[in-house]
Amino acid sequence: MNPALLKKSAHLHGPVLVVGTGLLGASVGLGLRSRGIDVYLSDASPSAEAVATDIAAGVPLADAPADLAPELVVIGAPPDVCGSLVVQALRRWPHAVVTDVASVKTAVLDEVRAAAAASTGDDDAVDVRRYVGSHPMAGRERSGAVSARAELFTSAPWVICPHDDLDPHAYRTVTSLAMDLGGIVTTMEPAAHDEAVALVSHLPQVVSSLLASRLQDTPAASLALAGQGLRDVTRIAASDPGLWVQILGANAGHLVEPLEGMRADIERLLSTLRAPTAPGARLDMAQLISEGNVGQARIPGKHGGPAQQFAWLTVLVDDKPGQIALLLTEIGQLDVNLEDMRLGHSAGLPVGMVEIAVLPSKKQSLVEDLTGRGWKVVA
Amino acid sequence: MNPALLKKSAHLHGPVLVVGTGLLGASVGLGLRSRGIDVYLSDASPSAEAVATDIAAGVPLADAPADLAPELVVIGAPPDVCGSLVVQALRRWPHAVVTDVASVKTAVLDEVRAAAAASTGDDDAVDVRRYVGSHPMAGRERSGAVSARAELFTSAPWVICPHDDLDPHAYRTVTSLAMDLGGIVTTMEPAAHDEAVALVSHLPQVVSSLLASRLQDTPAASLALAGQGLRDVTRIAASDPGLWVQILGANAGHLVEPLEGMRADIERLLSTLRAPTAPGARLDMAQLISEGNVGQARIPGKHGGPAQQFAWLTVLVDDKPGQIALLLTEIGQLDVNLEDMRLGHSAGLPVGMVEIAVLPSKKQSLVEDLTGRGWKVVA
Repeated sequence: MNPALLKKSAHLHGPVLVVGTGLLGASVGLGLRSRGIDVYLSDASPSAEAVATDIAAGVPLADAPADLAPELVVIGAPPDVCGSLVVQALRRWPHAVVTDVASVKTAVLDEVRAAAAASTGDDDAVDVRRYVGSHPMAGRERSGAVSARAELFTSAPWVICPHDDLDPHAYRTVTSLAMDLGGIVTTMEPAAHDEAVALVSHLPQVVSSLLASRLQDTPAASLALAGQGLRDVTRIAASDPGLWVQILGANAGHLVEPLEGMRADIERLLSTLRAPTAPGARLDMAQLISEGNVGQARIPGKHGGPAQQFAWLTVLVDDKPGQIALLLTEIGQLDVNLEDMRLGHSAGLPVGMVEIAVLPSKKQSLVEDLTGRGWKVVA
Repeated sequence: MNPALLKKSAHLHGPVLVVGTGLLGASVGLGLRSRGIDVYLSDASPSAEAVATDIAAGVPLADAPADLAPELVVIGAPPDVCGSLVVQALRRWPHAVVTDVASVKTAVLDEVRAAAAASTGDDDAVDVRRYVGSHPMAGRERSGAVSARAELFTSAPWVICPHDDLDPHAYRTVTSLAMDLGGIVTTMEPAAHDEAVALVSHLPQVVSSLLASRLQDTPAASLALAGQGLRDVTRIAASDPGLWVQILGANAGHLVEPLEGMRADIERLLSTLRAPTAPGARLDMAQLISEGNVGQARIPGKHGGPAQQFAWLTVLVDDKPGQIALLLTEIGQLDVNLEDMRLGHSAGLPVGMVEIAVLPSKKQSLVEDLTGRGWKVVA
């Protein structure tokens, strides 16, 4: 990449136009508004645009001054329509940088390039130098502007996908967007991005959906035995089919190979399970679980750093308002920072379990101090 | 089942002998000790037994009085050795009820019955009437007595698997064990249990391991893009291969059919992904995700009740000790009960996000009250 791209980015000054005001677009608007940047909103759906306006993610484009010249246009639309909206924006706003936030990047760039190649004159010219795709890794299983929040991108990776014709100014502008919104900027070629997300995002979605779909006819008595494992593996199976059809369709090529690998592994496992006492069967099964151990351990910690090991302890609390607060107040008084926390909490029972993660060096004294203060601690 | 089985159970009086002092066995010991019941411990591994003794899960069997007559023997060993330990216990303790807590139930019962059928006289008789298998659905991805805790079984399903020859007294004794430890008792035939856990526990483990094993050679730059989805789907891939080989081996028969179903679904999806623009391809993909939606929605809520919908809000807090406590203190003062909570928390950044779940009826006023008190709330 051109070293000029790496020059330190300044903050955005705006105005910024957000086209497509779903979860991501509206969150971009909220985040920029909270930094005092003017944001205009536009969505093909008047009601989606109205919700985004209501939550103060920006002002409708229709109310913009006639001489509006956005510094940046952010396309927040799903993959299917993303490319053509990028092309439209490049044509309509001749001085604006344009980016999109779709989950696939090659297909969008290809569409923009195709439109540029097909243009026949100044009237339909497409200036691909002003476009650079990006992808904030910050979805949720809930969608729409109603789930948007200014902090959605805080500490999450934000991939920017430069191409050969890219103007460094466009790269810097989109980098500023990502950094202003608290994202951690990563640069990748579009194809490398698509290959990466096939494995770390799209394949997990497919696997979660495949597993959950097995439960359609499972007797309720069996489902009543479900534990946290099943809930975790199937959580993202609640995602929006409309959006995922577009993502899987646009990244189909990169999904085939890992999915073929999984199918081969299932084949092998099926042979083993059909003759579980045959020589080597045990080893095959152990290998599957061990290989899973290896892969799982390679996933970095929540914020891109190395997987950090916290020490966990469990505290029992009465299940009534204020008890967890009291516990955390005392932990704060002991000057220990909470690294993570889970509640094991039952509406019908009088006792709640609070699982607390702290730095390993803090655990022993915290257990002693809390026990000394009368808390019931299970280390 | 014999209606006499359903008579209300009394509490255990003990003593109870726990054979196999891993996570489950030691947790049983801790739970019973916290109720004042005498517990004796025995494990083939002296160091495992020593850890369980150290955490006060009970007293070594070697220190028991010579006339020990346990009310109940709990076999906490993995599936491979579970059956023979049940048989040994039935022979050694002629008045004790015997249960086990292994994750598969048919194989253990078959082994006990086979030993009973093979006995040639009083010396090696096996009284199958005093044995009933059980399965508390309360594992963790961490193992060993060091991870044990008295409350492990609180609010979790505890399956009891009666058989035709079962003595009602044995059933009631094991029911008492489950209830004394806070479990929610469910009764199922052994085969029905094994079929149920194949789907809700063993298949999720296989799927999580299969996905995680795909990540063994993934470039670190790709893994850096991992989000919460991948982390959730692969969490249980960290489980112990030694234990899971035994579970998969013992329940192989029930795993074949759902795994064949998944393989067929992957076949279909692969055809679709190889020609993603062919007629019907979009519909196929949408169907996969939709069917996953349906299956996921059928999983009941955390404590066996219907899946309860909570309302979530996000509050931004300074990332320093005491802030979350202060927030929860104020929520307690507002007399709102926390239903669930997640921390989105970054070591390097000055802001943490606290996601809070409350009853939907409480959300609106809580948002207003917290905002009024100066908290930054994103509803």
